[in-house]
Amino acid sequence: MVTGLLSVVGIGPGAEDLLTPRARAVLQAADVVIGYGVYTEMVRAWLPGARCIDSAIGEEAERARASLELAQQGKRVALVSSGDAGVYGMAGLALELAATMDPAPAVEVVPGVTAAQAAAAILGAPLALDYATISLSDALVPWEQIERRLAGAVAAGFVLAIYNPTSGRRGHRFAQALAVLRTHLPDDTPCALVRDASRPGEHSAIVSLGHLIDAAIDMRTIVIVGNSTTRVVNGRLVTPRGYAMALMSHTGDAEATDITGQPIVREAGA
Amino acid sequence: MVTGLLSVVGIGPGAEDLLTPRARAVLQAADVVIGYGVYTEMVRAWLPGARCIDSAIGEEAERARASLELAQQGKRVALVSSGDAGVYGMAGLALELAATMDPAPAVEVVPGVTAAQAAAAILGAPLALDYATISLSDALVPWEQIERRLAGAVAAGFVLAIYNPTSGRRGHRFAQALAVLRTHLPDDTPCALVRDASRPGEHSAIVSLGHLIDAAIDMRTIVIVGNSTTRVVNGRLVTPRGYAMALMSHTGDAEATDITGQPIVREAGA
Repeated sequence: MVTGLLSVVGIGPGAEDLLTPRARAVLQAADVVIGYGVYTEMVRAWLPGARCIDSAIGEEAERARASLELAQQGKRVALVSSGDAGVYGMAGLALELAATMDPAPAVEVVPGVTAAQAAAAILGAPLALDYATISLSDALVPWEQIERRLAGAVAAGFVLAIYNPTSGRRGHRFAQALAVLRTHLPDDTPCALVRDASRPGEHSAIVSLGHLIDAAIDMRTIVIVGNSTTRVVNGRLVTPRGYAMALMSHTGDAEATDITGQPIVREAGA
Repeated sequence: MVTGLLSVVGIGPGAEDLLTPRARAVLQAADVVIGYGVYTEMVRAWLPGARCIDSAIGEEAERARASLELAQQGKRVALVSSGDAGVYGMAGLALELAATMDPAPAVEVVPGVTAAQAAAAILGAPLALDYATISLSDALVPWEQIERRLAGAVAAGFVLAIYNPTSGRRGHRFAQALAVLRTHLPDDTPCALVRDASRPGEHSAIVSLGHLIDAAIDMRTIVIVGNSTTRVVNGRLVTPRGYAMALMSHTGDAEATDITGQPIVREAGA
């Protein structure tokens, strides 16, 4: 009996050593690897056996359908997403489309390290307490809903990890998002950006909310917005948990850099 | 010159093949591996060389300080956290304490696959759109703040990933959290729980919000609370992105299981 399987695989943020062994094993066992060309390019070198199919960005539904049809034909198919396959990735779409097919191909999801986590590790520990993940892409979600979520999350005290902060076609959206954030948070709120986390050309900077508008930000950038407790400690961005704060009162306060008025507190490239 | 380094390492949710190669390399190169005993136990078998120091839960500050002092003495120290080291992990505390020391030991953070991502992959793709991560532990955060965040996140339409939902000492807190959620969300909101994601004895179930109170939930369980668009598709929990919904209107609706009135929609053990 032919048993195909579609594995939706999170390949992590980019560095080969942040791809999990499970993801690598699935990719290497696959008959076909499908994905947006930038991502298949990242894994192609490690996959001497598998056939790679590149697909253009924006063709998510076609790519998911093609993957499922190959699985229906008995192939082992790996559909790759960067980061985690379930976070703004292809897993949901594949599961939904699979349910419309008869017979429905088997679908599994292989998790991965997300871009937000990779960015946070580079910066320090800004996501150490409650945080919300939000995408500014309004291609699929009404902008009003995005603004409502931005406002709701910061009003409730969550740190934000912002995906897809801007693109050529919606360059004004990031400015609009900042305007929403600045009605709820002071301009000296510590923020940060990481571009190409764990990839060649990686770049990070810690900036205040008031200066975030001047930072170079594109689709490949993750933006972190701190909450009222987030602070810069020795050039790292940290959102303390309670015990750290309790402890500091005994040991003397850690050196907290005052970032007000400084456009960029720390900037690093790799 | 002696150069010590403290690496705060996320070892992933538990399965060996979800530990990244970077994390494994750091653990294997370490002179000393320190962590809560349950976590050091997970990695000890792969570490023939390193000395392992187990530390009790609740002794986070002592553990971080001991790790930093060893790094200050020139050792390569790996301080392990389950999941991602920066998500309710030890990274922030280590960075804050390091800043109080002279000379401050070098600290790096190695990201990992979080429990929420591992749980989501098992369930389907519930975190595919904007989501918020929240811990119900009030040991370090005032309960009123946790309630405010729960209410704010669901009112703004975020899916929730709930960490530390309950423990012996605060068994009433999960019921209180559910009461907050049920004032904002209908009882048929699709939810799920995963206990010991990717570990031996893994167990998952999809239940409605109204029935979540009857589910077996403890500290090792991740609870996912859907938003108004989250649904059950062929036994998997999915929060659709816009294009999937747009597409469904062309291809005929996917089979959506009606979960209202059913205490447990799907339950699985591994």
